[in-house]
Amino acid sequence: MTPGASELAEVLAALETVLRARRGADPKRSYTAGLYAAGPDAILKKIGEEAAEVLLAAKNPDRAQLVHELADLWFHTLVLMAAYDVPLSALGAELARRMGRSGLDEKAARGQA
Amino acid sequence: MTPGASELAEVLAALETVLRARRGADPKRSYTAGLYAAGPDAILKKIGEEAAEVLLAAKNPDRAQLVHELADLWFHTLVLMAAYDVPLSALGAELARRMGRSGLDEKAARGQA
Amino acid sequence: MTPGASELAEVLAALETVLRARRGADPKRSYTAGLYAAGPDAILKKIGEEAAEVLLAAKNPDRAQLVHELADLWFHTLVLMAAYDVPLSALGAELARRMGRSGLDEKAARGQA
Amino acid sequence: MTPGASELAEVLAALETVLRARRGADPKRSYTAGLYAAGPDAILKKIGEEAAEVLLAAKNPDRAQLVHELADLWFHTLVLMAAYDVPLSALGAELARRMGRSGLDEKAARGQA
Repeated sequence: MTPGASELAEVLAALETVLRARRGADPKRSYTAGLYAAGPDAILKKIGEEAAEVLLAAKNPDRAQLVHELADLWFHTLVLMAAYDVPLSALGAELARRMGRSGLDEKAARGQA
Repeated sequence: MTPGASELAEVLAALETVLRARRGADPKRSYTAGLYAAGPDAILKKIGEEAAEVLLAAKNPDRAQLVHELADLWFHTLVLMAAYDVPLSALGAELARRMGRSGLDEKAARGQA
Repeated sequence: MTPGASELAEVLAALETVLRARRGADPKRSYTAGLYAAGPDAILKKIGEEAAEVLLAAKNPDRAQLVHELADLWFHTLVLMAAYDVPLSALGAELARRMGRSGLDEKAARGQA
Repeated sequence: MTPGASELAEVLAALETVLRARRGADPKRSYTAGLYAAGPDAILKKIGEEAAEVLLAAKNPDRAQLVHELADLWFHTLVLMAAYDVPLSALGAELARRMGRSGLDEKAARGQA
């Protein structure tokens, strides 16, 4: 694994662990626990919101802000995955499925139809 | 570290390499090269679209479809990152910044304001 | 009614009538009938897509394109309303509820919480 | 013409007048004036957010909530139109352009490409 991938693996693993632990936590003490307590729609609203913010940030010149919004979007999809018991391995397997030269584009193109 | 996180990080790193290579490729031969050729707005539209599909899939009972849509969303954010020269390591660093017990929620809460 | 409002009333009324009639039409002969046949998620995906296109168009200099995307967004919400049997009068009543100096902002602010 | 369409068009016209007047108002005294002061991105974020809420509401059984979210979405597109000096009549004209049996679907289909 490249050093970059290894660092990313560590933060994704840590986030998965922390987020799953937050599911039962006191909603008053933590933003994430508050989202879990509010229910899936609250998490999904945040995903819609963060996606909109990625679009806007990408149209603005501040690249640090774009990274910030992309991290917010990934973060809230990880919150959703914890809420729905979707493991990181399922996302990895699905992305791996569409890897490989032809595979990558074939799958993506089919999703386009 | 969970094997799932390593596997996911590795496929993300591999996708980063492939997607960056596609930026100069013939748009007729590849879905992703076509997106790059169409310009940032085409990529951003896909992100908006895939975010909407994540919301809908999360409200439907088919969990495999949800994983599929989450992978589509992550895939198109990777396409955007390649287009804008945002390395995966920048996103990893940003996610790491908001990790840690209090850090996680503090940052997220600030993003809420 | 001002001439502008009267023209708008006519087109909204005509759209409501046409869209409701399309609900049972042959999906192969009409885009809208195709959406109804594909089911609510197909309509909702279009709303997500068109909202993203409004955001992008608003960040671009072409104002005619923005009007085009706004019309697409309204159009697909009207398709949704026909699909769900929500009459124009319900939308008018809800918007009227939040009219008036204080009413306007009070309602909107509450939606913000 | 249905009474619903007239009522809706009238409230849209009244909102247009009120919203245009709010553009120069004290941002502390009014939610809408606050949005104008915060700039176009703040309005666009709200459109992204409200579109997501329409999707979620449409997937939930509460129809009154759907009407509420649709009104929120239309309201914020009116705020955007006031901010960008897009008159309601321009949107009416654009919607009228795609009316008529074939016109309706032809235009929509082209927007699909």
